[in-house]
Amino acid sequence: MEFKLNSKELEKHLSKVITGVPTKTPMTILENFLFEITDGLLTIYATDLEISLQTSLNVVSDSNTKIVVPAHLLFNVVKTLKDTTIQFKVQDNGKLLLTTNTGKYTLSYLEATEFPDIPSIKTDENSKDINEFTIQGSELKESIDKTSFAMSREEMRPAMMGTLFEFDFDGLRFVATDGHKLVNLLNKKITTKINQQYIVPERAISVLSKILDEREVKVYLSKTHVSFRLSELELITRVIGQKYPDYASVIPVENEFALKVNTKELSDAIKRMMLFSVSSIRKVKFSIKKDFINISAEEASLGAAGEENVPCEYTGDDLDIGFNSAFLNDILNHISSENEIVFKLHSPTKAVIVVPVEKKENYEVTMLLMPVRLNN
Amino acid sequence: MEFKLNSKELEKHLSKVITGVPTKTPMTILENFLFEITDGLLTIYATDLEISLQTSLNVVSDSNTKIVVPAHLLFNVVKTLKDTTIQFKVQDNGKLLLTTNTGKYTLSYLEATEFPDIPSIKTDENSKDINEFTIQGSELKESIDKTSFAMSREEMRPAMMGTLFEFDFDGLRFVATDGHKLVNLLNKKITTKINQQYIVPERAISVLSKILDEREVKVYLSKTHVSFRLSELELITRVIGQKYPDYASVIPVENEFALKVNTKELSDAIKRMMLFSVSSIRKVKFSIKKDFINISAEEASLGAAGEENVPCEYTGDDLDIGFNSAFLNDILNHISSENEIVFKLHSPTKAVIVVPVEKKENYEVTMLLMPVRLNN
Repeated sequence: MEFKLNSKELEKHLSKVITGVPTKTPMTILENFLFEITDGLLTIYATDLEISLQTSLNVVSDSNTKIVVPAHLLFNVVKTLKDTTIQFKVQDNGKLLLTTNTGKYTLSYLEATEFPDIPSIKTDENSKDINEFTIQGSELKESIDKTSFAMSREEMRPAMMGTLFEFDFDGLRFVATDGHKLVNLLNKKITTKINQQYIVPERAISVLSKILDEREVKVYLSKTHVSFRLSELELITRVIGQKYPDYASVIPVENEFALKVNTKELSDAIKRMMLFSVSSIRKVKFSIKKDFINISAEEASLGAAGEENVPCEYTGDDLDIGFNSAFLNDILNHISSENEIVFKLHSPTKAVIVVPVEKKENYEVTMLLMPVRLNN
Repeated sequence: MEFKLNSKELEKHLSKVITGVPTKTPMTILENFLFEITDGLLTIYATDLEISLQTSLNVVSDSNTKIVVPAHLLFNVVKTLKDTTIQFKVQDNGKLLLTTNTGKYTLSYLEATEFPDIPSIKTDENSKDINEFTIQGSELKESIDKTSFAMSREEMRPAMMGTLFEFDFDGLRFVATDGHKLVNLLNKKITTKINQQYIVPERAISVLSKILDEREVKVYLSKTHVSFRLSELELITRVIGQKYPDYASVIPVENEFALKVNTKELSDAIKRMMLFSVSSIRKVKFSIKKDFINISAEEASLGAAGEENVPCEYTGDDLDIGFNSAFLNDILNHISSENEIVFKLHSPTKAVIVVPVEKKENYEVTMLLMPVRLNN
């Protein structure tokens, strides 16, 4: 059987789906695309068993087919071709022949039966337990990019290895935590009647961040899977079937001391303190006074130390508190679009809340950082 | 003792000298800068024993000193500081104290006696056997960047692990080869009375390429060392004390068949062929006809093959010849500024010459590529 398509059109589609191909996998079949042609529509699939990506484009074809083709080899050939028509010929001898005006390429293909099943979410009228909402791609991207850095990488607590999507009356809430830091971002524009939690795994979040653009995304959520539909592209991921920890209970409500500081100035100082806190806890000490913070770190292994005074406005009692400089730097990097931030504190052992000074209309972000013990 | 300087001024100097600090060395002392202050002039040195870099700047100081300071730690602190004055205080307890308006940093320093000697080239009137010439930095950079990729990485042939600087009546010649490919670049603007060869080692070439800019460079050459002086910065390298192979004898003079081809078209085709020549010899086959080349490669391990017809103008007999696709790609990448190139050929076993069609006035470049055997 044969089909024809334009090289640049194919490249555009492959460049999106290729992000779904796992780079290191013991199952070599996953290093392939599944090509399925039905009535002139080519659908290209990639999966790592947890997530799958698929895209569709029209082709000129003489019949239907379903074959498995080497993903990176095909993509690398196609992306270096000029704007040209590629004629695909699926030969009975297991070879796929690509012909252009000037070139001819032979690839080996496999039978489609060897490719794993791709999950799908039925979204017709009869489907039960499917929730859906629509969101601007750039807005979804911003929400997950500001949140997902706080996800856990530790397999011991699987629920925390994803980002929580939680629907409640105020809007859609994104939460991620690793037990040391936590981000709680509420998007008030997304109001639904859904009252449910879904945990989207790390890999889906990272692929999603790469493929989102300005365009609208339709999101469908079932008990087992979530689907993100961007016009011709669809990402389906399994959800983590665990209960998310009760994050609300760890967010202190009565942190009465407010510390206002310029984000950039603090961030620059912390970057220097990281040079002096390279051993395991990466401790940096804040000595907070009324109008300045003395920030210091000492690295015995280097025989080196640093301290810096950063101006602030502080309403509480003088306070000494320690942080992990790398975690604090993570938080500052992800709140850096904000000019000024407020730390809400209570004591050297209680979680600290970090919020931007300027409130956004449709949008609330709260970050939380656990202190580390100062042993002096 | 104390001295003072501006953070941005210091950063500018450190950012150049830091390229001379080795990243992996069993001699930890080399991970430091040597700071030497003599009569208000601070000279900063870095060395890996083969090359050394040094730069000088004026400072306000109360006495002379010579200390060894941790290179990366100091540079990382300085480069994140705002534009400010840094006060350095060398304390007797082995600590170096840096103070700014808002911060205070303590580093450990070592005695200067622990730092290796830095070679120097005496360039006064009485110096014998020192040759010198002056060249535009950008021109030197272009010459070494077009040549040095062909240097050998094999320790078995130490002379080829550098770039040859050869002075002759026509100008200054740059040569590099690894036995498979060779570049011979003649700069006719540099005419001297020198008639000598110097082999500059790979590490010096790579650092030189990073630090050169538009400004003039004075080059001083002795039997053992070469010095490159860029206003406030100086790179000194040992030369490789071996005889460079007789490269002229391997450049064929009678390759009578000329093959003219568009560089970009050939380069794109070769990049695709590299996908189909991943095993050790990376063989790509050229079947050359009067007006096109059929280029092909076959990778048994992938069950895949590619071929492409590239238009050409060819004056010789039909010829089949094989190349290592990675080496050919290297050559094409470094001649890619040229629109059209000519391959001069004789037979499938003799070295092939690659030259640009358009001749430059002050500038001649010849590349040479050894073919690989086609066993059919």
